[in-house]
Amino acid sequence: MDRQKLERLFEENRDRILEEWQALLRFPSIGTDPAHAADVRACASWLRDRIERMGFQARLAETASHPFVFAERDIDESAPTVLFYGHYDVQPVDPLGEWISPPFEPTVRGSRLYARGAEDNKGQLLYVLQAMDALIRADAIGANIKIILEGEEECGSKGLAAAIGDWRDRIKADILMVCDTAMDPSGAPAITMSLRGIVDLTFVVRGPTHDLHSGAHGGVAPNPAAALATIVSGLHAEDGSVAVPGFYDTVPELTPEERKLANSVPFDADAYEAETGVPPAGGESGYTVPERLGFRPTLEVNGIHSGYGGTGVKTIIPAEATAKITCRLVAGQDPRATLDAVIRHLRACAPAGLELAVTESGIGSPGFRFDPRSANLAGARRVLDTLTPHPTVLRWEGGSIPIVVRLAELADAEPLLVGFGREEDRVHAPNESFSFEQFRMGFLYAGMWLSSL
Amino acid sequence: MDRQKLERLFEENRDRILEEWQALLRFPSIGTDPAHAADVRACASWLRDRIERMGFQARLAETASHPFVFAERDIDESAPTVLFYGHYDVQPVDPLGEWISPPFEPTVRGSRLYARGAEDNKGQLLYVLQAMDALIRADAIGANIKIILEGEEECGSKGLAAAIGDWRDRIKADILMVCDTAMDPSGAPAITMSLRGIVDLTFVVRGPTHDLHSGAHGGVAPNPAAALATIVSGLHAEDGSVAVPGFYDTVPELTPEERKLANSVPFDADAYEAETGVPPAGGESGYTVPERLGFRPTLEVNGIHSGYGGTGVKTIIPAEATAKITCRLVAGQDPRATLDAVIRHLRACAPAGLELAVTESGIGSPGFRFDPRSANLAGARRVLDTLTPHPTVLRWEGGSIPIVVRLAELADAEPLLVGFGREEDRVHAPNESFSFEQFRMGFLYAGMWLSSL
Repeated sequence: MDRQKLERLFEENRDRILEEWQALLRFPSIGTDPAHAADVRACASWLRDRIERMGFQARLAETASHPFVFAERDIDESAPTVLFYGHYDVQPVDPLGEWISPPFEPTVRGSRLYARGAEDNKGQLLYVLQAMDALIRADAIGANIKIILEGEEECGSKGLAAAIGDWRDRIKADILMVCDTAMDPSGAPAITMSLRGIVDLTFVVRGPTHDLHSGAHGGVAPNPAAALATIVSGLHAEDGSVAVPGFYDTVPELTPEERKLANSVPFDADAYEAETGVPPAGGESGYTVPERLGFRPTLEVNGIHSGYGGTGVKTIIPAEATAKITCRLVAGQDPRATLDAVIRHLRACAPAGLELAVTESGIGSPGFRFDPRSANLAGARRVLDTLTPHPTVLRWEGGSIPIVVRLAELADAEPLLVGFGREEDRVHAPNESFSFEQFRMGFLYAGMWLSSL
Repeated sequence: MDRQKLERLFEENRDRILEEWQALLRFPSIGTDPAHAADVRACASWLRDRIERMGFQARLAETASHPFVFAERDIDESAPTVLFYGHYDVQPVDPLGEWISPPFEPTVRGSRLYARGAEDNKGQLLYVLQAMDALIRADAIGANIKIILEGEEECGSKGLAAAIGDWRDRIKADILMVCDTAMDPSGAPAITMSLRGIVDLTFVVRGPTHDLHSGAHGGVAPNPAAALATIVSGLHAEDGSVAVPGFYDTVPELTPEERKLANSVPFDADAYEAETGVPPAGGESGYTVPERLGFRPTLEVNGIHSGYGGTGVKTIIPAEATAKITCRLVAGQDPRATLDAVIRHLRACAPAGLELAVTESGIGSPGFRFDPRSANLAGARRVLDTLTPHPTVLRWEGGSIPIVVRLAELADAEPLLVGFGREEDRVHAPNESFSFEQFRMGFLYAGMWLSSL
């Protein structure tokens, strides 16, 4: 369907779309909060009913926690199959006092709709559903569609991840369509070319059975906090690279094409510092920021805790010290093998007289990297290039969406991550919003692309 | 007064002494808790009255916080002057649920009296007062006596330390008598030969204005937790020595005599590990445990805190990281100069792209070391050697009692630290107690020594 027709359909249905968008946002579907379990389920039911009315076979699929919506609508065995993934759960709303209008009373101010989930991910999933609806009514959809909308993406997708293995045969697809990402800061449409995988661990250095008096024991008892600092310090080399033996063994170097593409968008160090408060001085030397973010794995300390942290002085040798670590992996790194290498290294560093214990949450997931020569990429890009005056930006991103990589693996599908988020949407923060213009761009993208297949 | 006479006086007055000990322990004089300010003052008044009845001129001296008791009784200008220092404040009682009998209802069980302060320091100060009382009644005291009993030793002696400068002329003495220490674990009487001084600082490594997403920023933003770990790690050399330039410049080496004396009591590494849970593997190589504890300064990390410390995973680059550090100093080290050396070193380590800020509490105090050839030491030792079958042990201790070093300086007096505490007294813990036998030994020591001057 061409852009003009889609634009007309959007304008004609604008009021109804806004009403549905607001209805969806009124569910306080905070997946991580057990007190909202009924709201989460009610939200899933609303979506199932809405999708059913579009002509899908739709149901709630139970998991060990919240249900996911599963729907399918086939047109033709020879047509490609698109598996669309989104999530209807939202982040918690604290601090509530900072919201200008209540988070679950969607409110229009200026050209934006304000509510928790306005963008992430209710807004972005709804423009896809609205585009599908428009295409189906016009008999213009070009693919068999399967839909999975889950209720706990914001808290780790545990229910879906555990249940989805049994669905392997039902979710086979060519493309895994996800609209949960952002545009380029310049305003250009963007395709996410990579996701990093993730593994995590917590390690504890245990010393005395209780905090010791630093006068009576200082210079005698080994200090777990100091030992932990030395271990953490030894996890990186002087050049910023990870000093764990074997960590980089299976990390592929960038191809010249990737290097060129990744660096084609100039990185603005001053803007980065203005936004974050720090210069982009982290990571490995010898790689540019886009290269470090999109193509290099990391090991980051997420927290270290030991002993006294209050005001004033407490003269102790702490009984133990804890560090929390996550590694971001790139495609090619096996999560289990990488985590094992880190754990082996930590154990080898265990200091004399102290014990070192490691635990892990087990949420490991591999990384993913889009082939810049993919035909699916080219197809999406052609559509996106028509949306704004800017050419589409390819973004090699450093974040992780473990469930997407897992779904792609199970469905044997190529993930296609396109989204219309912007910094000012303030996802995860108070006063989340999404503009009508962003919603409309998403609708046009989904409509044009799904009818082009 | 000879031992037999003192023993007889103690037995004759046993019931009264126990009553007075219990009365003193009933005051919940928790100096650090503003809710107990009136109890602290009531306790001080009780002590002033008791001391007045012994024939002293006694008063409450006000400070910016709790009052201290000041008393004096002269016998003769030519007699030596003893300044006795003790404290009537006690540690908090948490966790209250672990007390077998309530902390401020002194209860006899077996051969011990249980209550908060039973030993530290109400029990130990009371045997001194009882011995003085017995000697005064028998006209057998050999010294002019001044007494200072303060109400906030357990929370840093701030009031007394600020006020005492004005008392310089009134507290001049030859010997500063303190009974707030312990016996040797073998059961031998002990004289504390050293106290370490102390300085402290807190340093913060500040990075991003807020916690950053470790996916979107990992490998780009510098990580304050990792940077802090590297700085902390660099504070010690491989051999366990402090790696701060200048730290040891004014630290005197042990004399051969000190080395011999310090090592004359065998150190039991197995017992240490059984008691603390760690082998004595800390501190500088090349020195024995007693040498490290009594004659070497230390730098200990008392706490490090940064980022996430809860269960599970939080994928952040923390905004900042904090470390708390105290150094124990030996006699010869200037607290200000040592602290400045550490701060200079930290500033020199400030990592690229991050800020480092240092704060200090300003409680710095110098260390103290007793001369093994002191005549006062010899006098106390002669008395102590008669108390048990064991010869007196000289203990070079690693702890700090800043107010004692300060008082000794102002009074121009030689500190004499003898105490009868034992591990099983559980000072600072629930179910603190002191045995009648320990109290009686203290009484005999104070009586014999004060009449021998």
